[in-house]
Amino acid sequence: MVNRVCSLFNIEYPIIQAGMVWCSGWKLASAVSNAGGLGIIGAGSMYPDVLRTHIRKCQANTKFPFAVNVPLMYPNVSEIMNIIVEEGVRIVFSSAGNPATWTKFLKDHNITVVHVIASTRFAMKAQDAGVDAVVAEGFEAGGHNGREETTTFCLLPLVSSAVHIPIIAAGGVGSGKAMLAAFALGAEGVQVGSAFAVSEESSAHPSFKARVVSSVEGETALRLKKLAPVRLLKSPFADAVASAEENGADAAALAALLGHARAKLGMFEGNLEEGELEIGQVAAMLHQVRPAAIILQEIWSEFIAEKEKLIRL
Amino acid sequence: MVNRVCSLFNIEYPIIQAGMVWCSGWKLASAVSNAGGLGIIGAGSMYPDVLRTHIRKCQANTKFPFAVNVPLMYPNVSEIMNIIVEEGVRIVFSSAGNPATWTKFLKDHNITVVHVIASTRFAMKAQDAGVDAVVAEGFEAGGHNGREETTTFCLLPLVSSAVHIPIIAAGGVGSGKAMLAAFALGAEGVQVGSAFAVSEESSAHPSFKARVVSSVEGETALRLKKLAPVRLLKSPFADAVASAEENGADAAALAALLGHARAKLGMFEGNLEEGELEIGQVAAMLHQVRPAAIILQEIWSEFIAEKEKLIRL
Repeated sequence: MVNRVCSLFNIEYPIIQAGMVWCSGWKLASAVSNAGGLGIIGAGSMYPDVLRTHIRKCQANTKFPFAVNVPLMYPNVSEIMNIIVEEGVRIVFSSAGNPATWTKFLKDHNITVVHVIASTRFAMKAQDAGVDAVVAEGFEAGGHNGREETTTFCLLPLVSSAVHIPIIAAGGVGSGKAMLAAFALGAEGVQVGSAFAVSEESSAHPSFKARVVSSVEGETALRLKKLAPVRLLKSPFADAVASAEENGADAAALAALLGHARAKLGMFEGNLEEGELEIGQVAAMLHQVRPAAIILQEIWSEFIAEKEKLIRL
Repeated sequence: MVNRVCSLFNIEYPIIQAGMVWCSGWKLASAVSNAGGLGIIGAGSMYPDVLRTHIRKCQANTKFPFAVNVPLMYPNVSEIMNIIVEEGVRIVFSSAGNPATWTKFLKDHNITVVHVIASTRFAMKAQDAGVDAVVAEGFEAGGHNGREETTTFCLLPLVSSAVHIPIIAAGGVGSGKAMLAAFALGAEGVQVGSAFAVSEESSAHPSFKARVVSSVEGETALRLKKLAPVRLLKSPFADAVASAEENGADAAALAALLGHARAKLGMFEGNLEEGELEIGQVAAMLHQVRPAAIILQEIWSEFIAEKEKLIRL
């Protein structure tokens, strides 16, 4: 496929693996890049030195392009950005912060910059800051999420009518059908999170993966809206949050309930009772743990097959 | 277009105008049916005698098929169903209730039955009850909504893999692009609410229509979740509900705050401060009040044009 997203990253398929805390280290990122998509190392759950190691291992394991995702609220963001430059990373996906802060620095080092947004207003702000593309992420996405709750179905055409840079769709995209729908709504690429979170190469705990692939429709919900909205899979911890929220718990009470390192506890250590289990609504469509290359190839084949079907309508 | 939805209703375009309280009387329903779609009279905001009048006026104003939408929780539902049979209505869309209760009665009178669902479980239940098709309505839809918050993007493929009857997509569908995306996700028809709520023929108050077409992204939210979830446009009343919910108001407190006839007050009487303003996220894409036939034709033309574009990818 020849399109702006493939050209921007120099990849074969416009399928990007989301940078995800506790799931996407060098193993997953290199597997996706080797399969013809764009793999992303998620810096959000890594100390700077750990990130440096992951970048080097990723470079050693793929000759294809890969990226690093940096949540801009990260406390060590300066150190992270310097490591990215020092290690010769070519593509950065920034999220959770102001795109104006780091885009110029990265572009000055000839790094391709993509920013993750959940509203048209932020898409325009990112474009103004000089990013090369945006990821438009809908309400159905797993993990951290926008405040306005705009869904992928509604967000894509709104963003698409407001910016001229390429749009990568995220939230609800775990199949070729969904990829085709995203393209119909104006996307030129897709960012796939949940489906790769349960891949063999994901660094998430096997218990977390097993819980996700056996989950059913309606088991995720957007929680902690008074702190930072995050989509969680049902669990005793998520139930406790829901109950506190129903009773009107304020941000301080929720922060106390959340404590520290809950995502690590749930997703990396596999504590399904007390940990945070971040995953998208698309979890209900995931049924097995498989190699990332198979997941990517299945999305692409289904995209092509469904496009042919749509033509015949 | 020849597909199962067109055949089921004997209509030219698989575009259905949603049955909506205070918006969709005979004027809107007949205009949509005359334009080649399927118009629906929304019985939810009508006393039985008023409904009878609307059915007769609709019959007098179109020779094409139209339907009546019946919320099954409606107190006068038996009377409504008898009127539907007496007046020779050929198609019923039922919603908000158990599809097993009335489907057999309607089918015994040779009436085509479609049930509105927001989850795969209810889609299967509706299919088991013998309905001819389901409307699968996502989280982004206006007005009353499902509890699981599954979005159109995620709901359609899940329902599509679980039932064999035709699926009509609702929630977020106000354009030909969205219609194409819905078809990519497994729908064979679309139900359009918000876009027709602001049509010239909609019986909603001009102030409500003006407020909707000037609304911006992020101005709707799902409220009253402890009663029955409903997507409302931002207003002083919606803000009061949001504030009560944040403070942990229970169902009784919310019911007291809601009182009676708020939807009529907002949508029919045009009280934008104290009334309920029910509309979908797609409101941010609506910019003018136009005739229903133009809205329908624009959706259809865009669907065809975007399908051609997608083929060339």
